[in-house]
Amino acid sequence: MSGKAYLVGAGPGRADLITVRGLTVLRQADVVLYDRLIAAALLDEAPAHAERIFVGKRPGHHAFRQDGINETLVRLVREGLQVVRLKGGDPGVFAHVAEEAAALAAAGLPFEIVPGVSSALAVPLYAGIPLTWRGVATAFTVVSGHEATPHGCSGISWSLLAASPTVVVLMALGRLEQVCSALIAAGRNPDTPAALISRGATSQQATLRATLATLCDQQRLIQLPPPAVLVVGEVAALADRLAWYNPARSPGDAMLWEE
Amino acid sequence: MSGKAYLVGAGPGRADLITVRGLTVLRQADVVLYDRLIAAALLDEAPAHAERIFVGKRPGHHAFRQDGINETLVRLVREGLQVVRLKGGDPGVFAHVAEEAAALAAAGLPFEIVPGVSSALAVPLYAGIPLTWRGVATAFTVVSGHEATPHGCSGISWSLLAASPTVVVLMALGRLEQVCSALIAAGRNPDTPAALISRGATSQQATLRATLATLCDQQRLIQLPPPAVLVVGEVAALADRLAWYNPARSPGDAMLWEE
Repeated sequence: MSGKAYLVGAGPGRADLITVRGLTVLRQADVVLYDRLIAAALLDEAPAHAERIFVGKRPGHHAFRQDGINETLVRLVREGLQVVRLKGGDPGVFAHVAEEAAALAAAGLPFEIVPGVSSALAVPLYAGIPLTWRGVATAFTVVSGHEATPHGCSGISWSLLAASPTVVVLMALGRLEQVCSALIAAGRNPDTPAALISRGATSQQATLRATLATLCDQQRLIQLPPPAVLVVGEVAALADRLAWYNPARSPGDAMLWEE
Repeated sequence: MSGKAYLVGAGPGRADLITVRGLTVLRQADVVLYDRLIAAALLDEAPAHAERIFVGKRPGHHAFRQDGINETLVRLVREGLQVVRLKGGDPGVFAHVAEEAAALAAAGLPFEIVPGVSSALAVPLYAGIPLTWRGVATAFTVVSGHEATPHGCSGISWSLLAASPTVVVLMALGRLEQVCSALIAAGRNPDTPAALISRGATSQQATLRATLATLCDQQRLIQLPPPAVLVVGEVAALADRLAWYNPARSPGDAMLWEE
């Protein structure tokens, strides 16, 4: 059998939020290259003979650089293997899929991208927060908190973000105070509902509901652990009515926190 | 067994892009309330005895209003049934899940939201377009073309949309010219790469690659059919290198176009 790479979104936390397609190719894998923030049970879905290679980036470590991942993918596919590259969330959102797919394409090797459920959408839903709400929030913007600067976040200005009906910040904890104060400085009403969701869609999910002005003080007291998703906008208030998920009653989905 | 509602995202087109969790609850359903733009094969996954009720909104028709859907959900769950509300894409994105969940919550009835793969993310991926690209596009904004006006789209101003690295417009065809010309008028470079993806992630997928300035003229000639997703931003150029999906070689996933 000739080799092929599958760039697969594993979803946001629970193992059963992977797609049927993703699970199908995972069960046929010869090799799995996986990241942090993957439901541990998913690794058990690969065949017993499959090699499992951790290629995640840990804060402060560079055990496996992006170039190395690209080269490994190309080498393994050339060897004729079915290679599953398992990424948390959706492969198209902050997951370097462009680089990996480009390396495979440049080498003339076949690949398939299997979309996944993005944490940007699903983690809020698990806290009772849809990103759109008829007549109230009809657009949303997604950024990465890792890239917050005084001028903007993830290459988008604070004034733009402040004007987006719903703002979702992935990896929000590291620069939470900067994000909240910059949005207020850019004109967002300090009373705007906000929600911080830690370890969403897992048995350790916890949500902090506050306003844009009060969220950081509360987080300083409560110290919800990473990873966390921040939602700013009127939709965040829906959590008070629509929160449906009881982590304590859910199966204990172990995650590869690697922390 | 007591009744419960499952508000399930069916994904963007292919039946196997539903989540494992979504398929699990679908296979246990007593009733399925479904929309347009659902992979037809998914309806066959419900048990033979399950009632299947089409509650989609067709353009110009109001056979089933949102209030009626909410009331039907509440009534069926009160009857003790397992009710699956099957929505295209992700339930949190332009899918009225807030209204349906609120009606269930107000009635004190149990529900679960099962996230789905959003067309906003997956349809571009099927055309070789991730929404983020390291160092180039590190944020994206999603709006609905149905709500484009001279002042903005989906409650967000054109100048703000023009400044978002990646803009995704769902249901883009109806006001395509208005969207493209408004983005240019608001300062977006007319040479910005753009892609229009019709019937993405199905055997009828077709992609038009152009620039923001030339896309509408080309669509006038080619007339790609709805539904279509528009992507504006440097990421759209990736389609030239990364397009991997060959609709002609994929299984013929029938969709409930209902057109």
